[in-house]
Amino acid sequence: MTEHRHIGRSVPRPEGPDKATGRARYIHDLERPGMLHARVLHSAHAHARILNIDTSRAERLPGIKAVITADNTPELRVGFLRDNLALKKGKVRQFRDEVAAVAATDPDIAAEAIALIRVEYEPLPAVFDPEEALLPGAPLVHEFDPRGKPLASNRIKLAFPHVSGDVEQGRQQARHVVEGAYSSQMQQHSCLGTSGCIAEFDLHGNLTLWAKTQIPFLAQKDFLGAMPALGLRGRNVRVVVPEMGGAFGSGLDTHPYEFISILLAWRTGRPVKMLYDRQQEFAYLPPRQSARTRISQGCDANGRLTFRTVDVLQDNGAYVSWGATYPSVMMVPVTSLYRVPNVQFGATLVYTNNPYCQAMRGYGSPEVTWAIESNLDELAQAAGIDPLEIRRINCNQPGETTPMGLKVSTCGLRECLDNAAAKVRWNEKRGQGRSRGVGIASLCHVGGSGRIYRSDGTGLVLKLDDFGNVNVLSGGVEIGQGFRSALTLGVAESLGVLPEKVFVAPTDTATCPWDVGTHASRGAFTSLNAAAMAAEKARKRIFELAVELFPGLVAKQRRKLLKRNPELSLSDFDPRTCTAEDYELRDGVLFIEHAPDEPWLRLGLDRFLRAIHFRDGGEMLTVEAFYEPPSELPDWTVGRGNLSATYAYGAHAVEVEVDEETGEVHILRLVASHDVGRILNRQTLEGQIYGALAQGVGLALYEDVLTQSGRVLNAGFTDYKIPTAREMAFPIELDFVETHDEFGPFGAKGVGEPGLVPTAPAIANAIYDAVGVRIRDLPITPEKLLAALEEKRGRC
Amino acid sequence: MTEHRHIGRSVPRPEGPDKATGRARYIHDLERPGMLHARVLHSAHAHARILNIDTSRAERLPGIKAVITADNTPELRVGFLRDNLALKKGKVRQFRDEVAAVAATDPDIAAEAIALIRVEYEPLPAVFDPEEALLPGAPLVHEFDPRGKPLASNRIKLAFPHVSGDVEQGRQQARHVVEGAYSSQMQQHSCLGTSGCIAEFDLHGNLTLWAKTQIPFLAQKDFLGAMPALGLRGRNVRVVVPEMGGAFGSGLDTHPYEFISILLAWRTGRPVKMLYDRQQEFAYLPPRQSARTRISQGCDANGRLTFRTVDVLQDNGAYVSWGATYPSVMMVPVTSLYRVPNVQFGATLVYTNNPYCQAMRGYGSPEVTWAIESNLDELAQAAGIDPLEIRRINCNQPGETTPMGLKVSTCGLRECLDNAAAKVRWNEKRGQGRSRGVGIASLCHVGGSGRIYRSDGTGLVLKLDDFGNVNVLSGGVEIGQGFRSALTLGVAESLGVLPEKVFVAPTDTATCPWDVGTHASRGAFTSLNAAAMAAEKARKRIFELAVELFPGLVAKQRRKLLKRNPELSLSDFDPRTCTAEDYELRDGVLFIEHAPDEPWLRLGLDRFLRAIHFRDGGEMLTVEAFYEPPSELPDWTVGRGNLSATYAYGAHAVEVEVDEETGEVHILRLVASHDVGRILNRQTLEGQIYGALAQGVGLALYEDVLTQSGRVLNAGFTDYKIPTAREMAFPIELDFVETHDEFGPFGAKGVGEPGLVPTAPAIANAIYDAVGVRIRDLPITPEKLLAALEEKRGRC
Repeated sequence: MTEHRHIGRSVPRPEGPDKATGRARYIHDLERPGMLHARVLHSAHAHARILNIDTSRAERLPGIKAVITADNTPELRVGFLRDNLALKKGKVRQFRDEVAAVAATDPDIAAEAIALIRVEYEPLPAVFDPEEALLPGAPLVHEFDPRGKPLASNRIKLAFPHVSGDVEQGRQQARHVVEGAYSSQMQQHSCLGTSGCIAEFDLHGNLTLWAKTQIPFLAQKDFLGAMPALGLRGRNVRVVVPEMGGAFGSGLDTHPYEFISILLAWRTGRPVKMLYDRQQEFAYLPPRQSARTRISQGCDANGRLTFRTVDVLQDNGAYVSWGATYPSVMMVPVTSLYRVPNVQFGATLVYTNNPYCQAMRGYGSPEVTWAIESNLDELAQAAGIDPLEIRRINCNQPGETTPMGLKVSTCGLRECLDNAAAKVRWNEKRGQGRSRGVGIASLCHVGGSGRIYRSDGTGLVLKLDDFGNVNVLSGGVEIGQGFRSALTLGVAESLGVLPEKVFVAPTDTATCPWDVGTHASRGAFTSLNAAAMAAEKARKRIFELAVELFPGLVAKQRRKLLKRNPELSLSDFDPRTCTAEDYELRDGVLFIEHAPDEPWLRLGLDRFLRAIHFRDGGEMLTVEAFYEPPSELPDWTVGRGNLSATYAYGAHAVEVEVDEETGEVHILRLVASHDVGRILNRQTLEGQIYGALAQGVGLALYEDVLTQSGRVLNAGFTDYKIPTAREMAFPIELDFVETHDEFGPFGAKGVGEPGLVPTAPAIANAIYDAVGVRIRDLPITPEKLLAALEEKRGRC
Repeated sequence: MTEHRHIGRSVPRPEGPDKATGRARYIHDLERPGMLHARVLHSAHAHARILNIDTSRAERLPGIKAVITADNTPELRVGFLRDNLALKKGKVRQFRDEVAAVAATDPDIAAEAIALIRVEYEPLPAVFDPEEALLPGAPLVHEFDPRGKPLASNRIKLAFPHVSGDVEQGRQQARHVVEGAYSSQMQQHSCLGTSGCIAEFDLHGNLTLWAKTQIPFLAQKDFLGAMPALGLRGRNVRVVVPEMGGAFGSGLDTHPYEFISILLAWRTGRPVKMLYDRQQEFAYLPPRQSARTRISQGCDANGRLTFRTVDVLQDNGAYVSWGATYPSVMMVPVTSLYRVPNVQFGATLVYTNNPYCQAMRGYGSPEVTWAIESNLDELAQAAGIDPLEIRRINCNQPGETTPMGLKVSTCGLRECLDNAAAKVRWNEKRGQGRSRGVGIASLCHVGGSGRIYRSDGTGLVLKLDDFGNVNVLSGGVEIGQGFRSALTLGVAESLGVLPEKVFVAPTDTATCPWDVGTHASRGAFTSLNAAAMAAEKARKRIFELAVELFPGLVAKQRRKLLKRNPELSLSDFDPRTCTAEDYELRDGVLFIEHAPDEPWLRLGLDRFLRAIHFRDGGEMLTVEAFYEPPSELPDWTVGRGNLSATYAYGAHAVEVEVDEETGEVHILRLVASHDVGRILNRQTLEGQIYGALAQGVGLALYEDVLTQSGRVLNAGFTDYKIPTAREMAFPIELDFVETHDEFGPFGAKGVGEPGLVPTAPAIANAIYDAVGVRIRDLPITPEKLLAALEEKRGRC
């Protein structure tokens, strides 16, 4: 199928109206009978021994149903390495550590009870700089690993090394070598919908959790892990996902607050709701982790890259989340953005007493791309090559296998670069002076899921009914990205029905088939592939049955038509000679491809489904499929393996004007050209890229979770600046390159994350073109820019 | 499989604790954001022309969001024959006719608004007796049929005639003939959970209805039928079924109140909740319809039945519900309870201005069994044969095909009769005098679904997960009967897992596969058959994969065991030679049937499912099945066809004592012997029979919806007497005959209804044995009994 009826159009998302009018029900809107409200007491220190917790006054408060601490509850281990506890025991390691929690009949009573809990601490020396944390004698954040083995340092035992080719030889082959250190900050996910959950046990001890999660089935597994400690081994957990106001990676982990809610529900025997407000979300929930990247790249006289080395120092804060696996995805651009024969990559993950961090959109890719693409401009300058040209010279090509073992099925990078450059009028605007300049940067990211778990699969069920409607059960999560829209269009296209007859069921582990999670830009990619498999099963059965039933049904239609109007001239076409291959289903109409185009030879799918349902030995079509992408779980000891079924490429080009008086950066134009494989729904695709660009601009210029000795200073949108319509009021041009990937559903690649990956280096490169200073530390604030300009003037 | 692990045990139902502790959420507990509360204004007359409805004062009441009448809303036709309107136009035909409705922010405001609506009526002559309603010149309840064709009489154009053999010849062959007329009353369903619904449109115009229904998918179809009138053709309807506090047939129809809620939701754009309280439920919702049955039966000198004629006059009230198809099921005992070669059956359905009626548990079977089994005692007496003996003589036999064409696969009637008689000590207690006596009566009912719709099927999906849990999606409804328990045990047994690992999902047309409805005692029968089909698919796949994966997995277990304890003596069994047929799954453990019983040769299903999930090209098992019972849609023009896959039989025996001073009947012992095919869960089976016996005793002695000129006089449990623990405080003996039906799941038959079918005639027969008077008009009240005793004394 190359002609699509629905794929590639620009249509509103199905849930849009309900969200726009406040009908959609988020976790905030949910209530359960007899529900209690929970609140958490967080640490007052970045690092301290807990000497005593006095909960007596809190317990006496009327309306309080439970006050829990590590002392009176089973120990529940949380997090990617299980190095975190739902409630902290012995000591606290960060300001956001959960020390006690309460459940009350009313949220205000819960807050009051929290204020009545007295904790005696003995402050301990703390460490807030990841490099200092690695020094001998630095305060140990964790003295023991989760198994009780003593730890000698703050270095986290997770490594993702990669060496390919001969880096030393590559260095020797280089005519030009540039080294640099680039750093990126903590960034808030800034979901419009803050975090929360409801935990409820039934009287058999089975747990239901209404959770704001991107990974309902991995979350189910995590929560199941808590059941034995509660004496509920073998009981089940059901995870229900309400409507979500954004996630951006914040829903990739299960969180202490969820386990605390479980403990409170278990203790009280009642449903318990935990809700974070904006200030609490900033102060107590993990943001994107900061990174310090050292890079060196070299090229020969022709500008061909001969080697690249990248070393990342990642400040994990006090605990390890899934974000600690960032290096696995960082390795994609490090090894495979542009052709580099000799590559070395290493990552060092460190505990500090900073707030612990989590994955965020891009999953390490923006962090290393910031280094690679800033440094590449410096290399181009050193080599005297135009920055656009050096990228074209080293451009990836379809069909190549990269040093990491990524199999590049399709690659539109060259076209993205050319389109972005053309649209930003690269040749005209480059080096134009008057504090204006242009910059460009590329990206390479997983575009066909990313295998970070033993299964990278997704299940899907299609249920067809007597009315021609199709109910879809999928484990994928609509997190605001347009998943439902893509799935609706994909099912409609694959099956041959109208999108308005397709209904995606709410996400619920009790009814939806398994899916590893909505991350790695994989939602549409995997679910639409699963949908195509399921739809094919349904079509096969429909066409088989059509051979048997269609002729009789249309003969009846023919008789009816002729009875109504005997004058009618109808062809004598006899469908009884047709085979299953002759039939086609399109937009809910069943017909024979080569038959005359007459109304009596067309059958509504609803009518046909009723015919197969209501005949003797009838049936109703319910079909299922489980799609596992053709990707590999890389061997992380050497950093090799085809992590994703396909890869997304793109390039951002930016024109900026720098106000040299104030240090402010004004973006004059932003062009985002993306190899999306194939557009599924232009409207939601554009929405996804616009949103990502705002987050990319925020990462580049504005956003920064500021801490002082481990305490968040800017908890809230008043002090933490995200780009709003005012900051984004410059011309944005989107450009989509369709490479029709063989593995993609309808040729599409995942595009959830790419939109923010190269924005920051493109801006930094444009700033350099405009005013000749390079900022290597995100965000590029007026203060940093003014200081650099001053320094430059000093040098001149 | 004949040895069952879980089937046949006695275990509590899974949802029991949540129901017992008030955690289960009924329609009463549900809320939706922005929800309005609806209320209906009902007619003030049994028959009247509506001259004017003044809603102006109601509309001005603060908090009122809509006031609707037939004049300002689209016409929505309701009911089995579509002869009813959601809101009545032109005239009212019964006291419960819906004339206007309101939606308000608060239920009290809604009630106040209703009181402010002024309706001007012109009363019309009304008819309340079904026989009078058939006389020429009787007031016409409907002047036109739904298509606008004039009607000449109150006779409803639905007929279920049956003639087999030669009735006249049978009459001539008879040595003894007894004729009689028997009547039964309107009976309230008396669900502990009263009726209600919530209707809500999304902004695309798709409707969700939370409904107290037994037929979610037929209800979906009915509600879809309303969409075109609302300008929403092609939009979808989703029906969600909350926990239900009983149904007993009240959920077999869609009701005007549901369509009114839809109209109000459509008009206001907000969710609308309609809830009936106990008084309203009695006054405004349809009970079991009353019937007048004329019967004549004859037997030869040996007591063999030679013929039977039955004519039923059914008072439908003002409108036709699904209850109008009662005669289709009445035909089962009329033609097939005992062997009768010559049978004639006819039913006359009549409109009156009485409250309209609906189906209730037993679906006509109790009504005609009341006549057949009372009359048979009279025939036995005429023939001088013991009532038990005449039943044994004419007993049905397995393998026979009855005059209606019912194929009797198994039949335990003879054993039920014998067991009931033995347990009530028939020979000892019969004719004992002292106002004490015993009676017996039998039943024959559909036991393998009952085909009343073009499809009699049910779909089912099993979803197996990494933890060995099984999620079940079924369209069947738990109405309090124990459906979830039966399904849980059936899935566990068929698949080979523990029942506590099986979870039945909530009933929702958006996620569950199609099912025709939970009626005709079919829930467990069809769903467990579907479960067996689906389980077989899963087992087949598991055993196929076991051949490939099991040997490696257990070899690993073996190595681990030996590593831990090298002394261990383990067999050298090599599973690599085993085929798929050698594997077995039992209680969640996968093993090889003929292998040594050693722990390393056993694999938890969870572990195995993870192995197939996490291997290359992994999969997760989701299987579906659609079961269509081997029954026939009878040809109703001649009343022939094998309505059900199998048939349930049974006999009740009762010992009573009559207080000849007060006319009160005291039951001393009640024995219920039922051919259940196979016990699924003894506990829920007993619960179902106990409950049915109470309804049977209520029908026999207490319950009666009293009306005067069409107005219900006893709306509420104060004036309408249902048997409580006090009335049921006599010894009840249950006896289950297991005939292992070939079509039944594990041999089981449907038993939801049979428990109340023969109770009333058994009691009436016992009363006759005790005091020599026969009451032919239910319920057998002290008044009727005293009058009969007095008349008898007068005769003596």
